[in-house]
Amino acid sequence: MNQIIPFEEWPVIALMTDFGLGDGDVGVMKGVIAGITPQAHLIDITHDVAPQNVPSAAWILASAYPYFPAGTVFVCVIDPGVGSSRGAIAVNAGKWFFVGPDNGLFSYVLQDQPVHAAHLLTNRAYQLPHVSSTFHGRDIFAPAGAYLAQGVPIGELGPSLDPAGLHRIDIAPPARIGKEVEARVIHVDRFGNLITNVPLALVPDLFDATRVQAIFQAGKVVDSRRRFFAECPDDGLPFIYGDSSGYAGIAVCNGSAARTLGVGFGAPITFVIANK
Amino acid sequence: MNQIIPFEEWPVIALMTDFGLGDGDVGVMKGVIAGITPQAHLIDITHDVAPQNVPSAAWILASAYPYFPAGTVFVCVIDPGVGSSRGAIAVNAGKWFFVGPDNGLFSYVLQDQPVHAAHLLTNRAYQLPHVSSTFHGRDIFAPAGAYLAQGVPIGELGPSLDPAGLHRIDIAPPARIGKEVEARVIHVDRFGNLITNVPLALVPDLFDATRVQAIFQAGKVVDSRRRFFAECPDDGLPFIYGDSSGYAGIAVCNGSAARTLGVGFGAPITFVIANK
Amino acid sequence: MNQIIPFEEWPVIALMTDFGLGDGDVGVMKGVIAGITPQAHLIDITHDVAPQNVPSAAWILASAYPYFPAGTVFVCVIDPGVGSSRGAIAVNAGKWFFVGPDNGLFSYVLQDQPVHAAHLLTNRAYQLPHVSSTFHGRDIFAPAGAYLAQGVPIGELGPSLDPAGLHRIDIAPPARIGKEVEARVIHVDRFGNLITNVPLALVPDLFDATRVQAIFQAGKVVDSRRRFFAECPDDGLPFIYGDSSGYAGIAVCNGSAARTLGVGFGAPITFVIANK
Repeated sequence: MNQIIPFEEWPVIALMTDFGLGDGDVGVMKGVIAGITPQAHLIDITHDVAPQNVPSAAWILASAYPYFPAGTVFVCVIDPGVGSSRGAIAVNAGKWFFVGPDNGLFSYVLQDQPVHAAHLLTNRAYQLPHVSSTFHGRDIFAPAGAYLAQGVPIGELGPSLDPAGLHRIDIAPPARIGKEVEARVIHVDRFGNLITNVPLALVPDLFDATRVQAIFQAGKVVDSRRRFFAECPDDGLPFIYGDSSGYAGIAVCNGSAARTLGVGFGAPITFVIANK
Repeated sequence: MNQIIPFEEWPVIALMTDFGLGDGDVGVMKGVIAGITPQAHLIDITHDVAPQNVPSAAWILASAYPYFPAGTVFVCVIDPGVGSSRGAIAVNAGKWFFVGPDNGLFSYVLQDQPVHAAHLLTNRAYQLPHVSSTFHGRDIFAPAGAYLAQGVPIGELGPSLDPAGLHRIDIAPPARIGKEVEARVIHVDRFGNLITNVPLALVPDLFDATRVQAIFQAGKVVDSRRRFFAECPDDGLPFIYGDSSGYAGIAVCNGSAARTLGVGFGAPITFVIANK
Repeated sequence: MNQIIPFEEWPVIALMTDFGLGDGDVGVMKGVIAGITPQAHLIDITHDVAPQNVPSAAWILASAYPYFPAGTVFVCVIDPGVGSSRGAIAVNAGKWFFVGPDNGLFSYVLQDQPVHAAHLLTNRAYQLPHVSSTFHGRDIFAPAGAYLAQGVPIGELGPSLDPAGLHRIDIAPPARIGKEVEARVIHVDRFGNLITNVPLALVPDLFDATRVQAIFQAGKVVDSRRRFFAECPDDGLPFIYGDSSGYAGIAVCNGSAARTLGVGFGAPITFVIANK
């Protein structure tokens, strides 16, 4: 029988970067963490974020963090501004901690969770002795995450910041105006499914409306809908579905909607929902 | 000196999917597990199974699971039928647990190991509160695996199934009829090596027979053999070898047999073994 | 509050191979380790080393290992000679252990760290019962690393070797002769940055010299320098920088220096440093 183990003994650090897995940089960050907080469990969200694509990374994080246990520390390094004056920050929002550059990565978190504290990572006691100009993931963010996971109070890491002043990118969900929603693609997944910035809560009638069309700029129109992928016809035709992330998506059965429709990240889409 | 630690304190959950590592879905599954069974060690088998290729996934699992410790819980999500009526199951076979869709993924396991129990994953107490129609890896399979790793009896997860009724794909090894074995390619590895469905036990004379030929449909014939890759001639010629998975394979020294021979997954091969 | 945990209870095993992540081989190695030393934390450095490129792997290891905690066991399998007479070894150098083939993988370690012990991995008690001819990562190296991480003395693994006799590849840093350094590319990272074999310590005046030029064989000349990537002009022009690995590199802002300059691993470069 397994014994019951108090939760805090098993801190989780979740990592997300655009470093890829080929160069060993992610491994180095984990080595740094293991040297500081050896009991931490390390979980990769992804390291294949499109290089320096902060909006894409922000959305992937948003779709992932709610599924992690309370106390999880997210160390996120998509950092086109490394070496510039952008701040390095730690944020305690909702039940979690978020560590990374202050460049908008945490926009969804800041929008959706109560922010309890935000601090600049300036305390040299919680960084590697030598801080390079190009690899803050190793020298600043990994150590900060490791110390937080160990129980070091967030206030120790550096001066407090006003959460209202943190950098945010534009993630406002589109408005539904009359029958129309002006949306865009915020993620293209491995299968070529197009996930849009339309929360399913905005279109509760997605599967009940008389008719729903997704119109792409080039004039292409998708107007069929499917609740399930299983047993969909292998006809190569794109359809609208409710993605497991909680957003409306466009898919092709056993195919790639991105390729079929010739669109990618950021592509505009107009949803037209007709309820007769 | 390290103290001796009772084995059950270190449950292992091994994960295999066709999700890739780019979208964060695997990370989300691990986050779910960490919230339920934080002490579990998570090991990735692979997440790059060819999308929805159940036979390929079944074989990769078969070549991997025997090397994992007793009690390991395998959570396997190659699930083209997600959202359909295919069952979600947990199986206790041999020394291990297997969790995933009932679509043939566990065919080799069911063939090679005694099955102690099989259950449907219908108990909502062991699922996430909201179950989506497209991401059962997160909502059903990851929680089931986490609870099994924690010691929850498999019978708690749902009603018992007759193992004889579980879905199986055709994995029967080919017969050796006279001098011939009608085989096919069941895996193409990273290096382009072609692994066939011929267990080495079927051809104990592979390296002792007077002559062994592998004949491909297009008429190409491979008739050299090598026990070791080291010091093989860099001549671009394919040869027959005994793969570490326990099956006969075809390789090219410092090259790709798949490319050289122009064949891939599923390609038929006839082995002709001549013992004079 | 977290309790203080003696360090030895959390051994770290870091893995590096050229196996890729698609075939499940890395997962199998981890399964073997989990069966022997279940409390070990497993950290991947990378599994995407260019197949059988020992010099590349040696450099990636060199840039990573110093960031890992004392006692970390590195299991490294880039092993073109598997099955040949090359030795399988374990080395205790500096604060770490290194396990892998004796083919030069550990050249930087042997150059930079005091070697306390080196042993052949011939004791069958610390191998899997059946040792294949092609997958020593699973059958020999993973078990050896697991036993070392468990506290088995290195001397138990096999006979002692004279460190002076270990295989080394040529990693001598280039000499600075007058104003010139004859260098070469030792790593091309994910972004296409070219990292050279010129330690920054060799060119302490990299950013202070009146002029620095990097001249490629095809006659291309790079003569601008940048301390930081942030806010660099998006002009497509390559520049010289100090890489976080401690070596001089060539990069293009938001682009690939490898593609821009048409060079890759091994390309020769002459640095000309003019101090007036």
